[in-house]
Amino acid sequence: MSSPLSKEQIEAGLSDLTGWKAGGEKLTKEFVFTDFREAMAFMVRVGFEAEAQAHHPEMFNVYNKVSIALATHDAGNKITEKDLSLAKAIDTLL
Amino acid sequence: MSSPLSKEQIEAGLSDLTGWKAGGEKLTKEFVFTDFREAMAFMVRVGFEAEAQAHHPEMFNVYNKVSIALATHDAGNKITEKDLSLAKAIDTLL
Repeated sequence: MSSPLSKEQIEAGLSDLTGWKAGGEKLTKEFVFTDFREAMAFMVRVGFEAEAQAHHPEMFNVYNKVSIALATHDAGNKITEKDLSLAKAIDTLL
Repeated sequence: MSSPLSKEQIEAGLSDLTGWKAGGEKLTKEFVFTDFREAMAFMVRVGFEAEAQAHHPEMFNVYNKVSIALATHDAGNKITEKDLSLAKAIDTLL
């Protein structure tokens, strides 16, 4: 079980990340690549990281763009430490 | 350049497919897998097919679910033969 973070905890977490926003009770970020292959390769790498952390993102892809949204199902679809941790790992993939 | 299909052409195309709908000027289908790995593997296979056809889907994934929407950018984001062709190829992946 994970606990939802407070607004202050989320703000503190965001300051450690690059380009992530907290909107609609999710952590979100848009990624733009040179083409579809690069976008797909990124999604696969995110997939391995998600499996490693046993925490999975929402991913939306159209051609060279990938949008990721993170929230924790066990915590009523709110933002928890698990989301900050996965966001941080995703940033290191770039 | 691809031409948008008529409603009749789309209906005829759908009768050749399994579980696809034509809504909001896109061909859409929802896929449910046993887990995230299976969903990810499917997306990668769709990706190879998309590259082969030089036509790319919108894909949305959350855990074991993948939603695909097909429309043709060059045809004002309407449904064309390219979408029917990619939908057919995606069905053969399952």
